[in-house]
This record gives sequence, C-alpha cells and structure tokens, in this order.
Amino acid sequence: MTELLSTDINETARRARLAASQIARFTKQKRTDALFAMAEELERNQALILNANELDMKAAAILVEEGEMPSAYLKRLKLDSEKLRGVIAGIRKVAELPDQLGDSTLHRELDGGLELFRVNCPIGVVLVIFESRPDALPQIMSLLVKSGNAGLIKGGREAENSNKILFNCLQKALLSSGFPEASFSLLSGRAEVSALLKLERLIDLVIPRGSNELVSQIQNNTHIPVLGHAEGICHLYVDQTADLAIATKLTLDAKIQYPAACNAIETLLVHRSVAENFLQDVIPKLLAESVDVRVEKSLIDKYSLKDVATANDTDWSTEYSDLTLSIKMVDSLGEAIEHINNYGSGHTETIVTKSGETFDRFFAEVNSAGVYWNASTRFADGFRYGFGAEVGISTGKMHPRGPVGVEGITTYKYKLIGHGQTVGEYSGPDAKQFTHKDID
Amino acid sequence: MTELLSTDINETARRARLAASQIARFTKQKRTDALFAMAEELERNQALILNANELDMKAAAILVEEGEMPSAYLKRLKLDSEKLRGVIAGIRKVAELPDQLGDSTLHRELDGGLELFRVNCPIGVVLVIFESRPDALPQIMSLLVKSGNAGLIKGGREAENSNKILFNCLQKALLSSGFPEASFSLLSGRAEVSALLKLERLIDLVIPRGSNELVSQIQNNTHIPVLGHAEGICHLYVDQTADLAIATKLTLDAKIQYPAACNAIETLLVHRSVAENFLQDVIPKLLAESVDVRVEKSLIDKYSLKDVATANDTDWSTEYSDLTLSIKMVDSLGEAIEHINNYGSGHTETIVTKSGETFDRFFAEVNSAGVYWNASTRFADGFRYGFGAEVGISTGKMHPRGPVGVEGITTYKYKLIGHGQTVGEYSGPDAKQFTHKDID
Repeated sequence: MTELLSTDINETARRARLAASQIARFTKQKRTDALFAMAEELERNQALILNANELDMKAAAILVEEGEMPSAYLKRLKLDSEKLRGVIAGIRKVAELPDQLGDSTLHRELDGGLELFRVNCPIGVVLVIFESRPDALPQIMSLLVKSGNAGLIKGGREAENSNKILFNCLQKALLSSGFPEASFSLLSGRAEVSALLKLERLIDLVIPRGSNELVSQIQNNTHIPVLGHAEGICHLYVDQTADLAIATKLTLDAKIQYPAACNAIETLLVHRSVAENFLQDVIPKLLAESVDVRVEKSLIDKYSLKDVATANDTDWSTEYSDLTLSIKMVDSLGEAIEHINNYGSGHTETIVTKSGETFDRFFAEVNSAGVYWNASTRFADGFRYGFGAEVGISTGKMHPRGPVGVEGITTYKYKLIGHGQTVGEYSGPDAKQFTHKDID
Repeated sequence: MTELLSTDINETARRARLAASQIARFTKQKRTDALFAMAEELERNQALILNANELDMKAAAILVEEGEMPSAYLKRLKLDSEKLRGVIAGIRKVAELPDQLGDSTLHRELDGGLELFRVNCPIGVVLVIFESRPDALPQIMSLLVKSGNAGLIKGGREAENSNKILFNCLQKALLSSGFPEASFSLLSGRAEVSALLKLERLIDLVIPRGSNELVSQIQNNTHIPVLGHAEGICHLYVDQTADLAIATKLTLDAKIQYPAACNAIETLLVHRSVAENFLQDVIPKLLAESVDVRVEKSLIDKYSLKDVATANDTDWSTEYSDLTLSIKMVDSLGEAIEHINNYGSGHTETIVTKSGETFDRFFAEVNSAGVYWNASTRFADGFRYGFGAEVGISTGKMHPRGPVGVEGITTYKYKLIGHGQTVGEYSGPDAKQFTHKDID
C-alpha cells in the first residue's frame, strides 16, 4: 500500500513514472484480468466499504449540523449498497470495452523498407484530484488501468475512510494481477497536490473533478495539461419552428432533473415568434418546481409575466448550479448562435426545431463540444454516450473534447522502422522519392 | 485586403470569429477549389513575388553586413524560383489530400430514435506567428484552408515585402472562391500579437513557429492552447547489437545534414559493449565534418580520444542547433531510456539495434512523439510523413503530437439527434435502458 505519510512527493512521482514504463508494456489480457480482479475485490469487501462510508457520513453529519458543510454534500458522500453495486458493474463494463492500446491508426510505407506507424499508447502518469464523491475513485482507477496509465489520486478529506478502503481493495487486486506497487498512490494532503503540480517532467496530465474554483485554481498553477472544465453554461434554444411540447419537456428535464450537474441548462433562448405561447406554458411549470425564473425586463412587461425576477447582463454568464434559470428572447437563429458563442462555456447546447436545415446551421456554427437536436443537454455524460465511465468533461476545443472516457486519456506515438535510411538520400538533386503508400 | 493599420485588433479577431462560422459550413469542393485557385494565383505572380523577396534580401544583406542579423538567416529568407515552385506544388498536394471535415468518427444509437455522432470539424480561429521564412506563409494558409479554419497570421518583419505579396495573392484567390474577407488577416506588429494572446474567447489555438524563445514566451503569456515545441533534444542510441555501419551513417545524417533543424540529434548514447569500436569509427568522421564533439571525461581517458571536448551535465539538456554533439556511454538499454526520458524534449529518438525485442521495449518506454528503429531522426517532418505540409511539430503528450498536418488542426463535436428524449426517462426505478449500438 502506498498511502503517503512522508513528504517525499517527488519520489512518489518518480516511482509512478517508472511504474508507468512497466505498465506500458502490459498486454490487453493483463489489463482486462486486473479490472475483473478489481471488481471482485470490491464485491468481496462490500460490508467493510459500507462501514467505512458510514464513518464518513457520521463525521459529515456533524459538520452539516454545525453549518460547516452544505447539506447537499451528504448525498454525494453517501455510498449505499445500490451505488456500490453500480460501481462494481461499471468496472466490469470498462473491462469489456474495446482495448485499443497498441493498435495502429496509421500504417504507411514512406519508401520500400521504411514504414511509419501511428500507435495508440498511454499518456503516462495522471494526477486526479476529486472532491467528496467516493464512487469516483473506483471509476477513475478503472479508466486509468484500462488506458494503461499510472495514477496519483487525491480524494476529498470528507470521504477519507471510504477512499482508503476502496483504494486498498483496488490496490490489492492490482498487486495480485502483477501491477507494480507504485502504479497508483492515494495522496492525503493539499500540500502534496501543490508540490505535484510543479513536476511537469514526471506528470503528464492533471484531471481535477470538482468545483469551478478547484479547476480554475489548478489551471492557473501548473504548466501540466489540465483536462476539465471550469464552467458548464449550457443553453436550450427554442426555434421558431419548435414543437413547443418538446421544448417544455426538455427545459424541465435539463433544468430540474439534477440542477447541480454541469450539463444542466442555465439559459433558455426563445425565438420572438414563439415567445408568448412558449413562455405562458413553461414559466408556470418552472415556478411549480420552485425554479427561480429570471427574465429580460422587456419581456416581463410585454407579456405581463408574473412571479419572475428580472435578468440582468451578469445572468448570461452565470452558472447557477441550482434551481435558477435565465430567459432571453432572440430575433433570429443567428442571434441565438452568437449569444451561445459569446456567453457559453463550450459544453453542450440544444436546439428544439422541426427544421433539419436550421439544425445543420446551428450544429456547424455553435462552438461547443456537444450540439443537440431535440434532446436534453443532460445526455452529455460518459455513461450515456456508452464510454463505460468518464474521467470528466472537457470544454476545450482540442482533443479530448466533451465527455472523456478511455480513448481521451490515451495518446499515440509515431513508430518508424527503417534499415539505415538517411534524410540525406531524400534530399538534393538526386533525391530518392517517397512512395507514401498507405497499408491496411 | 485586411492588412492592419488600425489598433482595433479586437475587431479583427471578432470578424475572424464570424468568418470562421461561415467557413465551417463550406463544402469540401469549395475548399478544394480555393486551394487550386491559391496555387494558380501564386503561379501567375511568380515574377512579382521573386522581386519582392529580392527587396527583403537586399535589406537583410545590409543588416548582416552591419552585424545585426546572423548570416544564416539569409538562406531561410531567400525565395528563389525553385523554392516557389515547391511551395505551389505543396498547395496542390494539400488540395489533393483526403478531406475529412464533416465525417463522423463515431455513430452510435443510444436508444431507438436517439443517435450520437462524433463529427470532425474545424477548430475555429488560429493565430500563427512565424519568423523569417516566407515560404511558411503559403504552407500554413493552405493547411488552414484545408482544415476549415480562419487565420490571423504574423510573419517576420525581415520578410515583410515577400509576405505581403504572397498574402495578397492568396487572399485574392480566396475572395474569388467565395471566402469572406476576414477569413485571413496579415498582422504587422508585435503589439498586435500581445493583444491577440489575451483574446481567449475569440482565438482557439496559437501556433508559434520560430526560436525556442518565441515559443516559450508565447506559452507563458496566454491561456489559449499553444501548439508547438520549445526544444528539440533528440537522441540516437547505439545498442549492443547495433550494426555499427548503420549507426555511423545515421549519426552523420542526423547531426550534419541540417543541424539547425529541431529533429537533428544533440546527444549520442552508446552501449558500453560497443563504445570502443563505434567511437573510434564515428568520432574522426564527425571531426572531419567540423563537428564540435563533447564526450564524457571518463570515456576520453579510457579510449584516449583526441580532439574532443569534455561534456558536462548541462550538455545533456542543451539543444545546440549547430554542429555540436555530446556523447555519453550507458550500461544498459534501461539506462538509455531513462536518460532520454529525463533529458529529452519528447520530440524524436532513434535506436540502432538488430533486436526486435530491444526495439519493442525502447518503443514502449520512451516518452517521445517519434520512436524510430534504424532510421534517422530527421525523418520527423510533415512532408516526409506524407501529410503534405506541416504547421509545426508538437512535443506535448496530448493530441496533436509529432508533425502536425491537416488532421492535427481539426477537432470534433458530438451531435445528438433525438425526438424529445429526457434524461429523466433513463433514471430511477423504471429507467429506460440505453442500447449503445454502434452503426457503421
């Protein structure tokens, strides 16, 4: 077990780097076997795990009582037997996903006896930092094992007992499957994370899962690539040809089903031509669900809307993460697209429309990782996309983008196999010519 | 023509963003036609272009005479009719490459009537900054057109006349092909670049092509993703089973053929068992080519090496970009791999060995974008890989990695097409199940 008590965090990272080298040579079978062993070990220790979680829950309940922790945290911290069964099933699902490490995505003859391959490979050492939810730990470790990476894992202090027992079970399964001990380490303190963020030669990727503040703070304090999103400002746009019943249904789902999720909507954009009908229908339903509805002042006056607040300019760039929704009217599809690209966070947007042509333009011009037609933004999720699990959602424009599963935490290397060829032979007046022939 | 005289750089970026939205909806045919028109327009204006380059060359010759510019710059600045023909042929080659924008790399039924696609799309607005070589401008613009991106382009001041005429020709071809005027802008000053680096909502990617200082400075002054490499410290490792004739041939090619290139080697690693034979052969040949050879002190004494300098620890992490080579002896393959991972820059490394097993381990454990077997590191290049051209070489571990052509400057979006489905229907005790069926 590699729980850290010493301050020698550099040594931990260095050993993870060496372990990553070993793991990089493992077979697909070895990774798959390890994943099934991980699932089994959790299954065998369910009672111990649930007991440890009860300890965390008791400590948290006191903090909530004393007003030092929001009560919403309790739900995330809780690990009951149903959740745990889901976690175990998830690991088996990840084990059964296609394993594409070592596969070539390009095989090209540059010239006779000179062949180029682009080969899928692990990224190396990944630092994952997450808050409160203990079920995230086995999910993340299973994705790291599947993708051939080594991991340094920092869980939330409030889930300390749950994380320890989960980590110990998984580590035991990995050791018995022949993984080096330093492949995964559970970190204990914030100071360790700060030190690790400086080790850009030893750590290849940082994945923060938690509050916007956590993600922003990490992004601003490291030169290591950070996978994640600081904000999730998603939109639903009701077009002039929308089926208004669908628009209402999707609005309610995307706002109410889980308002704290990053893929919940924060702003509803409504085309002028359907605004009156749609707002008269949807606003009372939102109010009935205790949603704080904030509407542009001009619209409140125009349609004599009741029981709603006035939206101001800061609303368009606010992630409420709560039962609050801002509403704006637009005059055209173009205005809706411009609003989304200006104020959105590049996460996921939905258009409700009957027109395929309208959707095609919305899809081409909206700069977000997910652009949906007549479906809830809440589908933006690794499980729902069929990735087995996700390490997070990326709102950047470069790869990986959107919900990130196994594929997003692998990379590739170019392999060139020659027989002593020099570039000199392919230069100058008598240069040999490249054949550039792709080979299946 | 959008040459910038005003200081309203935000407006330029904003107009590029709007142009990018329009370009994102163009057909493959429209992009291909534009590329052929670009090649033709350059062909028609060859005399004008060469004249403009002569003006730049004259001004540069004076600077060299006055000692204000290294004479090596003249070769890079020079655009003769052969180079220009190569550039024009390159644009046509890019036009003929497969165009994969709009293609889906994933098509999955999540459930009946709910289909997910992952669709290739442009990144958006790319800021390219390059130094001295005017032939880079048409190469970069052709890759940006092919990949559906808008571009803000800043060339070197010393190539000002060449860049202006090249840009004006290409812009004329683009306008006649229906591209919006703001799709591409040629920037004139450093102050404009500094201002653009702050516009992370308007610019999606920065590609600096030039000195290590330029790249580092940009990386440290923007939150926009930067594609490039600050250093190219490449290695050649001569294994105990190496064919020493091949080792010598590749060493000479990788060091001498173009020492200023980022894919030239800086350090030679030699297995102890072949050190004596190999060094006695290769060192006199390196010296005959005026290479400054720097060898570990212990080796100089042991093998009584003549006319070589002593390598010290800073040599292992220095990119000479010149006719200088450091040499180190290692006791094992593992030591060679560790040295490369510790001191290398993740660019390209070669092993000379007769053993496939040895290469497999070297390939799996070396953390570089290119890992070669019996071939010169100098092959690490977009043209040689058959990408038609390259915007640069990326030494990061995330995508894009290695030489970056069209594919590396595109990204993807997830498209979800539904009929009003909510996540609520897929949650709770009566949850509908996802089918997750891949569709070809």
